Amino acid sequence: MSYDKSYNLLKGKKGIIFGAFDENSIAWKVAERAYKEKASFVLTNTPASLRVGKIQELSKKTNSIVISADATSICDLNILFEKTLDHFGGKIDFLLHSIAMSINIRKKLAYPSLNYEFLRKGWEISAVSYHKIMQTAWNKKAMNRWGSIVAITYIASQRSFPFYGDMSDYKSYLESITRNFGYYWGVKEKVRVNTVSQSPSVTRSAKSIEGFDKFLVFSEKMSPLGNATAEDCANYIITLFSDLTRKVTMQNLYHDGGFSNTGIHESTLI
Amino acid sequence: MSYDKSYNLLKGKKGIIFGAFDENSIAWKVAERAYKEKASFVLTNTPASLRVGKIQELSKKTNSIVISADATSICDLNILFEKTLDHFGGKIDFLLHSIAMSINIRKKLAYPSLNYEFLRKGWEISAVSYHKIMQTAWNKKAMNRWGSIVAITYIASQRSFPFYGDMSDYKSYLESITRNFGYYWGVKEKVRVNTVSQSPSVTRSAKSIEGFDKFLVFSEKMSPLGNATAEDCANYIITLFSDLTRKVTMQNLYHDGGFSNTGIHESTLI
Amino acid sequence: MSYDKSYNLLKGKKGIIFGAFDENSIAWKVAERAYKEKASFVLTNTPASLRVGKIQELSKKTNSIVISADATSICDLNILFEKTLDHFGGKIDFLLHSIAMSINIRKKLAYPSLNYEFLRKGWEISAVSYHKIMQTAWNKKAMNRWGSIVAITYIASQRSFPFYGDMSDYKSYLESITRNFGYYWGVKEKVRVNTVSQSPSVTRSAKSIEGFDKFLVFSEKMSPLGNATAEDCANYIITLFSDLTRKVTMQNLYHDGGFSNTGIHESTLI
Amino acid sequence: MSYDKSYNLLKGKKGIIFGAFDENSIAWKVAERAYKEKASFVLTNTPASLRVGKIQELSKKTNSIVISADATSICDLNILFEKTLDHFGGKIDFLLHSIAMSINIRKKLAYPSLNYEFLRKGWEISAVSYHKIMQTAWNKKAMNRWGSIVAITYIASQRSFPFYGDMSDYKSYLESITRNFGYYWGVKEKVRVNTVSQSPSVTRSAKSIEGFDKFLVFSEKMSPLGNATAEDCANYIITLFSDLTRKVTMQNLYHDGGFSNTGIHESTLI
Repeated sequence: MSYDKSYNLLKGKKGIIFGAFDENSIAWKVAERAYKEKASFVLTNTPASLRVGKIQELSKKTNSIVISADATSICDLNILFEKTLDHFGGKIDFLLHSIAMSINIRKKLAYPSLNYEFLRKGWEISAVSYHKIMQTAWNKKAMNRWGSIVAITYIASQRSFPFYGDMSDYKSYLESITRNFGYYWGVKEKVRVNTVSQSPSVTRSAKSIEGFDKFLVFSEKMSPLGNATAEDCANYIITLFSDLTRKVTMQNLYHDGGFSNTGIHESTLI
Repeated sequence: MSYDKSYNLLKGKKGIIFGAFDENSIAWKVAERAYKEKASFVLTNTPASLRVGKIQELSKKTNSIVISADATSICDLNILFEKTLDHFGGKIDFLLHSIAMSINIRKKLAYPSLNYEFLRKGWEISAVSYHKIMQTAWNKKAMNRWGSIVAITYIASQRSFPFYGDMSDYKSYLESITRNFGYYWGVKEKVRVNTVSQSPSVTRSAKSIEGFDKFLVFSEKMSPLGNATAEDCANYIITLFSDLTRKVTMQNLYHDGGFSNTGIHESTLI
Repeated sequence: MSYDKSYNLLKGKKGIIFGAFDENSIAWKVAERAYKEKASFVLTNTPASLRVGKIQELSKKTNSIVISADATSICDLNILFEKTLDHFGGKIDFLLHSIAMSINIRKKLAYPSLNYEFLRKGWEISAVSYHKIMQTAWNKKAMNRWGSIVAITYIASQRSFPFYGDMSDYKSYLESITRNFGYYWGVKEKVRVNTVSQSPSVTRSAKSIEGFDKFLVFSEKMSPLGNATAEDCANYIITLFSDLTRKVTMQNLYHDGGFSNTGIHESTLI
Repeated sequence: MSYDKSYNLLKGKKGIIFGAFDENSIAWKVAERAYKEKASFVLTNTPASLRVGKIQELSKKTNSIVISADATSICDLNILFEKTLDHFGGKIDFLLHSIAMSINIRKKLAYPSLNYEFLRKGWEISAVSYHKIMQTAWNKKAMNRWGSIVAITYIASQRSFPFYGDMSDYKSYLESITRNFGYYWGVKEKVRVNTVSQSPSVTRSAKSIEGFDKFLVFSEKMSPLGNATAEDCANYIITLFSDLTRKVTMQNLYHDGGFSNTGIHESTLI
């Protein structure tokens, strides 16, 4: 597929993109695509990720500034939003949350054997951070009317995928935040909030999951259109940030080549 | 909201739009918007609708031809697709199904008192027509790879809305066709198939529903972003026809200002 | 598992059971189990099924009468309900709909190649019959308050299972009838209406499905508790007919060993 | 409705019931009903709840012992399960989780203004406790084959109900645990795990919710069968603990008089 065209879909729009680490990150692809569509944005990630990852490269490519922030810290988030509003001289139009981490998965602790201290951290990073970002934006009145907030999720939030461990529960929580905060954003600020439930993608965090490779192949076979790539996901998210989808809110949107509604694929029954 | 911008999202794309009757029709708005986005298309409706409605006006505005066809007639559909492929000198990229009719509702027969002959006709017009259109397109190999097929539905397919009568069941059937034919289209032709579950809109068929006015107000109050209008819907459908949403398939996509996931709205509890 | 115990759960309850053909039928197992739980009921099926099947054997075993009726014929249904109410000297408490047939599947017509005359018949037999049965019961005021109406469905109504063809769409329609007629039954008569979405079972109609054997094995592997058998299903339906589930209505209840919410089973990824 | 009959549905079954506080608690009603159905069980709650509530009264009525335990403490849970297994001289058959608390709601902090320390506590009490209970039972191999584990939830987990605040997100998490731990319990131990999504009930925790009274009336009007009471819920849960529902697992079961699938009720549109 050629993704070379630009439609100027985000011309004049400003935003913050959370979670770009390297060129495999969904957030990275969204930044590249948003830049092509004429958006301006701030890139942000934790100090550790900024150090290890390649965000400076992305920053140059997309002519955007980088502001370090731990999305579990209200203090960091306050500074991030203040700097951003200051940088743009006004409110913003979109937010992307692409943040997820499970220490239990990294430590190869199976779901029945979760460590609860790791669980708390994973939940705060992967799910509560979404609420904190929105609470900060809410308190600072940072969003323009008809703005758009998106987070990335995975279908393990709705069905059991054993390899995905406690991350499944965080994603359920994330989707619930979407509905609940989405209600308030809609009523008071005409801002929409959604999650995109994406095919498995070979990102940095995916690599820490045992058996991920096998699963990727299974998912590819089960999806009538094949897995959606990170580039595909970026394209889709651009439509959600654009003015053409203003009345879509509080939804969990499957972007997965049809996987979610495929009970069985003929090719897997042989 | 201003919908004046054009993004050239459908440049070079060709399609067929079923169901434009007058300027209140969703299909009408889609045609206008698709034209603005540089698509070429054929307009079609039944002979009776062509006679009574204003499609010639739309045809002129959008520089498109009109081909009469009853979407319940395989014979008519064959001719329609042959003429269309001939007209464009090749395959097409998108199809819009916006066809629905319940004689039981028109005759004010409540759901427990359905007339089964009316039921059969309503089902054939509102639901089976979608299968017939896709079967014809399938047999004629009419769709380009990465094409997009969309039908309009309503949330009464998933929850009980008494005023919507037997149309609710047709819409369920329509959404099921979407999943099942969508599987084959995806696997064999890389074409995607979806439904858009739209807010209640004041279209010609809506006007035949008793109590529709009251319901429209309720729906407006219950939706955090307000009801989505037919123009909003057209914008959204353009994104589904574009190349930016290629991996979304077999989905029922709520475009309703958040109504579907709002259990209760504070303003309705006073 | 031992299913020998009886709890007298249906003592004093009367009903009609549609669709028992032979000892593999779910309706057959429900009849056996309902009898054990002290229910009285009428067995019914089409004249052809009565001739070919073994319903007389079941009738003797369960001390119940058999009344021939084609569930697509309002005339037959009127007679059935009149005779039943007369037989019991009063209203009834439960109805079981276990009727499904796809000529397209029997003729091995794949989903994109459906014959629309066969489709209409399949839809009338498998889905509309449920509405007709309820309409007849409604008009004759045949149900006691807190009665229970159940139909059997399959998850292909919600996700694509290619081997299940057009039956998938009929089941979607059936589930929609459940919600819509369930609303009226609830509001006016305090009667509940539900579907049970059952694991694939080796019934007579299942045997006509190509590739069913392979699928049965796949489903067994994917279900954390294994497939639910027809006996399991009978047990479950008894609880839905009992007084212990009076507030469950308009639901599609998965009875499938967990299949519906299992995205992937470790044993299938090897 | 008369719930006086006993069916001996739980004869010989043993279990633990978490969360009975006073006669309005769902757990209280389940204990009463389970006792009538011949189950034996241990009652448990936090030391503070035991002090303030009336659990001793229930203990006498149902001939059961009380063991104090904080369900967020793995240490307490270990002792609870050890004592229980010892008390019964063997494994148990059922567990009921009826535990929920939101400090944010008590403090009247609206959803956009959550306090994150309160959030963490509420999440640990209302959601993580379910995982901890199952992890303890898992490690101690406490459950008999074909045992049944149930937690109480509310539809705010799936749609926005502003008055329900952060509890909505906990309930989503709880339902996700159900699917994910349910998978493992099913595969390894043939134990089923479900949630019951219950109508709003006037329990102690409900009383702390602002605007709950208005909502209760709205819910009563919107539910075709009316709200399900705590007694209704107890009856339903008994069926889920019985041997008649062995293949139902990883489900969220709506027990709500049809509320969940009622889009609009005629009586609310006047």
